[in-house]
Amino acid sequence: MTLPNFKTIEWVGGIDGHVALLDQTRLPGEVVTIQCHDVESVRDAIRALKVRGAPVIGIAAGMGVVLGARCYTGPDPDEYLRLMDETCARLASARPTAVNLFHALDRMKACARRCIGAGIAATNEALLAEASRMHEEDVAMCHAIGEAGEHLIEDGTRVMTVCNAGALATGGIGTALAPLYLAHRAGRRFTVFAPETRPLLQGARLTVWELHQAGIEVVLLCDSAAGSLMSRGGVDLIITGADRIAANGDVANKIGTYNLAVLAEAHDIPFYVAAPSSTFDFECPCGGDIPIEQRDFAEVCGFAGLKTAPEGTKCYTPAFDVTPARLIRGLLTERGMIEPVAPERVRQFLTIDPAC
Amino acid sequence: MTLPNFKTIEWVGGIDGHVALLDQTRLPGEVVTIQCHDVESVRDAIRALKVRGAPVIGIAAGMGVVLGARCYTGPDPDEYLRLMDETCARLASARPTAVNLFHALDRMKACARRCIGAGIAATNEALLAEASRMHEEDVAMCHAIGEAGEHLIEDGTRVMTVCNAGALATGGIGTALAPLYLAHRAGRRFTVFAPETRPLLQGARLTVWELHQAGIEVVLLCDSAAGSLMSRGGVDLIITGADRIAANGDVANKIGTYNLAVLAEAHDIPFYVAAPSSTFDFECPCGGDIPIEQRDFAEVCGFAGLKTAPEGTKCYTPAFDVTPARLIRGLLTERGMIEPVAPERVRQFLTIDPAC
Repeated sequence: MTLPNFKTIEWVGGIDGHVALLDQTRLPGEVVTIQCHDVESVRDAIRALKVRGAPVIGIAAGMGVVLGARCYTGPDPDEYLRLMDETCARLASARPTAVNLFHALDRMKACARRCIGAGIAATNEALLAEASRMHEEDVAMCHAIGEAGEHLIEDGTRVMTVCNAGALATGGIGTALAPLYLAHRAGRRFTVFAPETRPLLQGARLTVWELHQAGIEVVLLCDSAAGSLMSRGGVDLIITGADRIAANGDVANKIGTYNLAVLAEAHDIPFYVAAPSSTFDFECPCGGDIPIEQRDFAEVCGFAGLKTAPEGTKCYTPAFDVTPARLIRGLLTERGMIEPVAPERVRQFLTIDPAC
Repeated sequence: MTLPNFKTIEWVGGIDGHVALLDQTRLPGEVVTIQCHDVESVRDAIRALKVRGAPVIGIAAGMGVVLGARCYTGPDPDEYLRLMDETCARLASARPTAVNLFHALDRMKACARRCIGAGIAATNEALLAEASRMHEEDVAMCHAIGEAGEHLIEDGTRVMTVCNAGALATGGIGTALAPLYLAHRAGRRFTVFAPETRPLLQGARLTVWELHQAGIEVVLLCDSAAGSLMSRGGVDLIITGADRIAANGDVANKIGTYNLAVLAEAHDIPFYVAAPSSTFDFECPCGGDIPIEQRDFAEVCGFAGLKTAPEGTKCYTPAFDVTPARLIRGLLTERGMIEPVAPERVRQFLTIDPAC
């Protein structure tokens, strides 16, 4: 069984090919793949959240650079590189706070500068290979996170997640959902509880959809019903993704994650966070140093264009919250599980080369 | 200043008058008053949640009985009472689980049987007086709850509530919101945080609207953002309503109340519940004995008519959750505050006649 059985992102064909993206704004109502043949269509897909999830955005941007670079038909390497930098700036502006996007573009620029001596055609091929490598690395990273957490999922386990940290957010089988996909492939039967994740409902729209595709049992609930379910003994463990992890192990993730962590502690339910090591930010000593984006009031005052609160309503609209390390049983990374989550252990785990 | 400055329910005119109801399904977009001149229009308003909140439903049903009773133009008292019982059965079927509705109808039936000896015209007048008395009693009850909790609200207090336990749910100034209305009238300035309260969004649609009407500052947030706000020191106290309170002080209330209570404990924020003594059910020894209604999956799979989850999604849909007494700092009733919330104190407080 291949997991997932849909393609969030794919490069179709050779150097003359294109990017195929699953339009996540149309899910779950419609399964529509967008064919992007130029930089602007990739930029639009990123900007309009048709692709979302830090890893996928990075891969999409990398592929977008290929679409831009191959347009240059002149003979001048400097001109080629200058136009490529413009393409990168254009793509970077699609989601100005997405760190992964910048890292991917930096990597593409470095690749071009490394290869340009071999000529423009060879550099185009090298850029495509680099974008494909980023995709492959992401697939491997997801799989390794899944292996780090697969043992947590037994027959009958009832696991809660939040938002969507699945195959729709990565090039592979996700981060928080990766252990579930591997356990499912190993034949274990279990139930996933997916809070809908207001305001943008990624839990309802995306996590439920992708687990349905795999045939994994999933139950949707309002974010407010998590405590009720836990108090009735209905949850065995929680696995969430992460947007950024501070040096001490504090985790910034989708708003509502902290609610679940506090509720988990009150009910003695182990709480895990799954994320690649690139999510760790050693520049941030603790969670309080992580900047929290405030979203547009319109997201909370309505949904999909429908107004649900009076005109002019003030809102509290953080995109993320911070879960302190003390509430986290373990951090699932592509290098294995960090447990317990203590500052010196986090640093040691991630800075020692596993090959040594 | 009269509070509230809108009328949730009103009997307009004398015995030939009618019931005027604020249509809560149209809020906050439109402020529409429905004029009910017959039993069926009142029944429809209750059934379609145009009026909601246990006290208002009871009052509406009482007034509905008057509309039905006065239609009888014959001379036969027995026929009059039989037709009245039919009217009551018809109204009772509008919300088959609303205990308040049944109590109100029983009271109207008892009133008719008490008065029928004085003739049919006099009984009609007595029924109107009884329905008006129910309304007045509710106004007084709300006010007394407000007085029990007003001291909690100081200048600058940041108070969180949930759902709508305000003037839109009662004949008066609400239960959970009553202390806020009195503090506001006393000139204190404070901020209310209203979680939107999925799935039916009574916080966004109703609580924000009614506090706006009164000029009380209110900030809307997703249910999932409550922990974030508390962790930043943004909440001083919480007051919620109650649907039923067990003999030991455990409280069943709108789904999400328990999440807030657990978060409040973790942040050392006092958590209060406001409810009339009629909400206490001494037949229920503890919260685990309170039956919890499961709602239609469609409420969670959609958002105001818009589908948000795939077809056939399983859901966990409790309408209420149970907050154990140990998480509640005090119970605000029309007889004063019960604090601490311990079984023997609850019983003593509510069974001793305050006039003795």
